[in-house]
Amino acid sequence: MDSIRHSCAHLLAAAVKQIWPHAKNAIGPSIETGFYQDFDMGDTKVSEDDFGKIEEKMRQLLASWNKFEIREVTVEEARKDFADNPYKLELIEEFGTQGKTITENNPGNFLDLCKGGHSDDLQNELQHFKLLSVAGAYWRGNEKNKMLTRIYGTCFSTKKELDDYIIMLEEAKKRDHKKLGKELGLFVFSETVGKGLPLWTPKGASIRRELERFIVDEELRRGYLHVMTPDIASIELYKKSGHYPYYKDSMYSPIVIDDEQYMLRPMSCPHHFELYLSDKHSYKELPIRYAELAKLYRYEQSGELMGLQRVRTFTLADAHIVCRRDQAKDEIHGVLDLIDYVCSTLGLTQGINYRYRLSLGDRADEKKYFKDDRSWDEAEDVLRSVLQKRGSSFFEAAQEAAFYGPKIDIQMKNVNGKEDTAFTVQYDFVMPKRFALSYINEHGESEEPVVVHRSSIGAIERVMAFLIEHYAGAWPVWLAPIQVAILPVSSEKHSEGAKNMANELKSAGVRVWVDEADETVGNKIRKAATQKIPYVLVVGDKELSGEDLMVRVRGKEQQEMIDKNSFIERVKKEIVQRIG
Amino acid sequence: MDSIRHSCAHLLAAAVKQIWPHAKNAIGPSIETGFYQDFDMGDTKVSEDDFGKIEEKMRQLLASWNKFEIREVTVEEARKDFADNPYKLELIEEFGTQGKTITENNPGNFLDLCKGGHSDDLQNELQHFKLLSVAGAYWRGNEKNKMLTRIYGTCFSTKKELDDYIIMLEEAKKRDHKKLGKELGLFVFSETVGKGLPLWTPKGASIRRELERFIVDEELRRGYLHVMTPDIASIELYKKSGHYPYYKDSMYSPIVIDDEQYMLRPMSCPHHFELYLSDKHSYKELPIRYAELAKLYRYEQSGELMGLQRVRTFTLADAHIVCRRDQAKDEIHGVLDLIDYVCSTLGLTQGINYRYRLSLGDRADEKKYFKDDRSWDEAEDVLRSVLQKRGSSFFEAAQEAAFYGPKIDIQMKNVNGKEDTAFTVQYDFVMPKRFALSYINEHGESEEPVVVHRSSIGAIERVMAFLIEHYAGAWPVWLAPIQVAILPVSSEKHSEGAKNMANELKSAGVRVWVDEADETVGNKIRKAATQKIPYVLVVGDKELSGEDLMVRVRGKEQQEMIDKNSFIERVKKEIVQRIG
Repeated sequence: MDSIRHSCAHLLAAAVKQIWPHAKNAIGPSIETGFYQDFDMGDTKVSEDDFGKIEEKMRQLLASWNKFEIREVTVEEARKDFADNPYKLELIEEFGTQGKTITENNPGNFLDLCKGGHSDDLQNELQHFKLLSVAGAYWRGNEKNKMLTRIYGTCFSTKKELDDYIIMLEEAKKRDHKKLGKELGLFVFSETVGKGLPLWTPKGASIRRELERFIVDEELRRGYLHVMTPDIASIELYKKSGHYPYYKDSMYSPIVIDDEQYMLRPMSCPHHFELYLSDKHSYKELPIRYAELAKLYRYEQSGELMGLQRVRTFTLADAHIVCRRDQAKDEIHGVLDLIDYVCSTLGLTQGINYRYRLSLGDRADEKKYFKDDRSWDEAEDVLRSVLQKRGSSFFEAAQEAAFYGPKIDIQMKNVNGKEDTAFTVQYDFVMPKRFALSYINEHGESEEPVVVHRSSIGAIERVMAFLIEHYAGAWPVWLAPIQVAILPVSSEKHSEGAKNMANELKSAGVRVWVDEADETVGNKIRKAATQKIPYVLVVGDKELSGEDLMVRVRGKEQQEMIDKNSFIERVKKEIVQRIG
Repeated sequence: MDSIRHSCAHLLAAAVKQIWPHAKNAIGPSIETGFYQDFDMGDTKVSEDDFGKIEEKMRQLLASWNKFEIREVTVEEARKDFADNPYKLELIEEFGTQGKTITENNPGNFLDLCKGGHSDDLQNELQHFKLLSVAGAYWRGNEKNKMLTRIYGTCFSTKKELDDYIIMLEEAKKRDHKKLGKELGLFVFSETVGKGLPLWTPKGASIRRELERFIVDEELRRGYLHVMTPDIASIELYKKSGHYPYYKDSMYSPIVIDDEQYMLRPMSCPHHFELYLSDKHSYKELPIRYAELAKLYRYEQSGELMGLQRVRTFTLADAHIVCRRDQAKDEIHGVLDLIDYVCSTLGLTQGINYRYRLSLGDRADEKKYFKDDRSWDEAEDVLRSVLQKRGSSFFEAAQEAAFYGPKIDIQMKNVNGKEDTAFTVQYDFVMPKRFALSYINEHGESEEPVVVHRSSIGAIERVMAFLIEHYAGAWPVWLAPIQVAILPVSSEKHSEGAKNMANELKSAGVRVWVDEADETVGNKIRKAATQKIPYVLVVGDKELSGEDLMVRVRGKEQQEMIDKNSFIERVKKEIVQRIG
């Protein structure tokens, strides 16, 4: 697919230069979802409105293209061929200095500088392309350089694949958590507060609270000890943990208090270790599972920030299990059990919504990974064998471990296909040494434990981003900010009765909203539908005088007739059991 | 009382100089709970072991003391009289430069520099004194100066008062939240993490969680909208709010992110205003009550830090009510209703555990208070009239308002008699202007609302400090980290049965602990009593085979016989209703 898409980028370059001869094409690689081509367009602005024209020109040119002929040239020849293109010239000089071979290609009537990797069957394989978007991009990604025009497109070898992809993109646009978050009023950003710092509205905070209480209660039930530790700490703590040198670039600048330097914490492990160290421990107490809804602060470049998925501060459902070496496997099984439970409660399926990644270290890279080959081998074996024993399918990824040990990552894709780590389970043999963690074993001797770092539901912000897109805003009842909407037929005549009914539901622990607006019932029903409220009750004289209700269930055509008490019981059950 | 205590400080100075002639006495004022006297002791260390000797010398001297004779002297005379005391000389020079009158006194055989204010009846009034403690203190409170020895003592006009005070002090020592917090394992401090930054253990965090969920749920029930906003924000936000100049000294140094300055937030109001500004509002929506469990960061000098009562970061149950001017009184009533409810749930009584303070501004101090006399008058009237209408007794305090308006403070004393603001209700007419907050009124015009800032249960850290001392560690059932302890008679024979019983209680939502230690039951009972666990069940063959339990109820001599199901129902009821 890469060769097709890369070929298509050349075709785009050729078309743009035909339409705007002054355009200078820079680079045009294939990417995961298609390709892009950068141009210096001078004063010309290209917009999506031009895509029809460009695509037409691409088709015209394609008709006369045969095959990419690759020709090796000298620096001098290349310089001459691209004399009017400063971007190509810069690359040619670089290749020359580095002693690299320089190759040109020409599939028809368009000469380009290129190292190869093209389709051999242009007439068949290049038919199904589409331009997608246009954006600014600095030459070579450096903001000191000129801003170029980047045109994104994609290309598939069959029409069906292209059509499917376009439908997927449209669906993705509708589900995009940034868009839905705004439409449903879940969170906002404020320029004055700052980039990457979401402010949660009452509705968004309501969902977060449910998620947070869910995970805390579930963890307590499974023997975790929830603690609370400060979000700032002396820089000495991170020097002690060793995070400071490894993690410096992800940490914010120090805060000075009375001549001491304090840091916003990028992780909570050293905090939990200090708690562990505040008392002596016997082997009988282990495993000790410290958990916390920990606010963490990690630097992200402003260009990397993305809605709730990439933020500058987030709340991690974090835990550190201090255990004996012989308990590690059981503990990791326990963590994966919890993660499976969380995923199934959220309606996520392995293989569809998430997949397991075994993230490994690199024995040769002592800068990135703590040097201790034997422990790395052992730890990687433990994680691999746990995954194998569970019969979980997983893939292995080199160079993705933490600096203190390997990990199992639960990877999720957002609607645009970008994959991120949602949850993680890490085996750590470094921190116990650094912090001199110990316990007294059966023989009264001091022994070193291992630590399992894990998140169960991940960063609340990131999982919220996934869930907004997953549910497309149609929250299951237990998470819905408004579980039942009550719409009085006449705001004057039925508001009082509607409020009484609302109070009855509220006492049963249901989140209710009465729409008292002076509008038609039709309007109110449409508003409730836009908000994707699970249950809508229209109440008039009849509903307020009797016990039977007509319930509009989200996603169902037919209304349901049900008596009030049964309805309340049903909603309560769906909330408590987290179904529906 | 001040004159008696101040006189006693002179007596202490005289006694110390008799015992250690090289000692140089600095200042010796009366304070709220007694007096202190500072000394430069040279190389001599004074400890509490010396108190008997010093007190005896004080009594000897007192026998020959008559009356404080006050004599005005010139700078030259004073210089001569105190030629060997550099501290007095420094004061004499200062008084001279400032043109102040210099007076000396001599009640018997001890000349001191003093501006007066003494007892006239030394023989009767100075009999009932006691030295209490010794500490280091910098000369004039400046850490660049020499560290002096400060001896604290107290003095009452009757023996009974002194005895009562000493009993109170002993009780306070036992209840001191720092001591109890350690004994009960609720929180710890770590030098590596930093000063004033408590780490909450599983038990302490469990109490906090209950308190936090209690207040959030109660606020939601009363129509508050809980939100979540970031703990850091651009410095621009605090410049916009005006907090930056007024509050600068309480704020930590900026964090630099991509050349922008970010601050740890000292308060959440500007964050909530940004949320309010993210949408348009009609008069029909008001009041909007934004609430948040907000982490705040305020600088405290290291000498001011005190357990959980004075920390460097705390979580405030904060809220900002945006309302129409004509709604303010009702809203303030509503807040005071909530505070009354919170206090009564916590078992706190007005007049005994807390009192209302009406904190006023100063029209003349434009540096400290926003200049707008008419609004100050109006706002102070609103607060005063609400307190009067409720029939709440209160006292007024000048110069205690916020910079943006007056407030009602709920003042609580800790066991050592130090009073602090626990909760607060503030009327703000400044922020709405600064943030250009507005709503559309009945006539379609834009109008400015007012804001009520309030905390319902205050800072969780501070209220925890109060509550630890208030309950002396004997938490009501709903807050107790362990609600029921199950002690197997034989750890071998009855552990299994004990665990099954524990699971039954856990499923009912009860926090249970099974003491599986290999110890005698007597030992286990004593351990549970030390931890002040509300209910203790000793289970052996009999209890595990039948349905009847022998329950040890905290604070009761007699055990209670009760069947298991009734016991579970009873504990559940006490948890849900927050009684017992």
